[in-house]
Amino acid sequence: MVHADASNFASGVTKEEAYEQVLMQAEGLFYEQRNWVCNLANAASLLWHAYHSLPPPSNAVNWAGFYVLDPSSPPEKSQLILGPFQGKVACQTIAFGRGVCGTAAAEARTQLVPDVDAFPGHIACDGDSRSEVVVPIVVDGSVGEGKGKVVAIIDVDCAAVGGFDEVDQLWLERLAVLLAKSCYW
Amino acid sequence: MVHADASNFASGVTKEEAYEQVLMQAEGLFYEQRNWVCNLANAASLLWHAYHSLPPPSNAVNWAGFYVLDPSSPPEKSQLILGPFQGKVACQTIAFGRGVCGTAAAEARTQLVPDVDAFPGHIACDGDSRSEVVVPIVVDGSVGEGKGKVVAIIDVDCAAVGGFDEVDQLWLERLAVLLAKSCYW
Repeated sequence: MVHADASNFASGVTKEEAYEQVLMQAEGLFYEQRNWVCNLANAASLLWHAYHSLPPPSNAVNWAGFYVLDPSSPPEKSQLILGPFQGKVACQTIAFGRGVCGTAAAEARTQLVPDVDAFPGHIACDGDSRSEVVVPIVVDGSVGEGKGKVVAIIDVDCAAVGGFDEVDQLWLERLAVLLAKSCYW
Repeated sequence: MVHADASNFASGVTKEEAYEQVLMQAEGLFYEQRNWVCNLANAASLLWHAYHSLPPPSNAVNWAGFYVLDPSSPPEKSQLILGPFQGKVACQTIAFGRGVCGTAAAEARTQLVPDVDAFPGHIACDGDSRSEVVVPIVVDGSVGEGKGKVVAIIDVDCAAVGGFDEVDQLWLERLAVLLAKSCYW
């Protein structure tokens, strides 16, 4: 199989089935490859093509990618910096605690935001985005436990309100666990 | 202006005008930001959206992004590793000298390939790709001079034969020069 075929999702699959394929393909692509840039770049592609194979609201996803801990920021003033993604040009840096991404990073906790306009301090990188899900990638700890170190976040934006639900959260948290253990951070 | 607007190209622009906007936006985005992952991620987005605003064959571009020098490969056995991109899942590593990308990296010279099937040793990451342009990003030297160090390559694939010409080469080489001087490699 050529690599691009990993991005091909059968039409008519459920969201669970699409995510299952993302995880399975990701696991194969990460085998014997621990470079985080390479792995996040392919993971962003898998997510993007999975969403666009699904019915609304998932196919209205307009950004899928990653921010990582900025190595140039001091620990007392941590910030995220843009990583690999698919979609339109995005904000380069985001301070921990700021907006949806910064909150997920600071709290090491998933942010499921059905309406970004109702989120205090939301950063509008793209005026089209209406809902968002952000999942921290945590090493030496678990998501939601408030332990460990946040090395990156998965960020997905949707042009529809209510684009994400608990199914998205569950599978993206599984992807975060896979990425945490599959890369040198 | 929100960041995503940088990816919006007016319809009816010429290829030269679209590339001019890519360069101008890239220069703005790279101002006071020298992180190569961040800058390549936004550059891939600019290129992707530029091509898709143009008439055929440019709008048949099916992959736009970067491979970088793999820091884990020894100098005598250099290889490229996948960087930020837009499009379908791609090959993770490419040895210097192998295929279109590896040839551009080994020779520090742009490869303009109207028909990939006629290129000896072409690597098919995606069976849909019919033509390709690859431009080396060279520090401490110039493209085509055989001097300097190749730190990365710009790679663009097209699903149409003859997707790229000397205009693409000229502007992508300008982008390569901008990227070479705008990032810490």
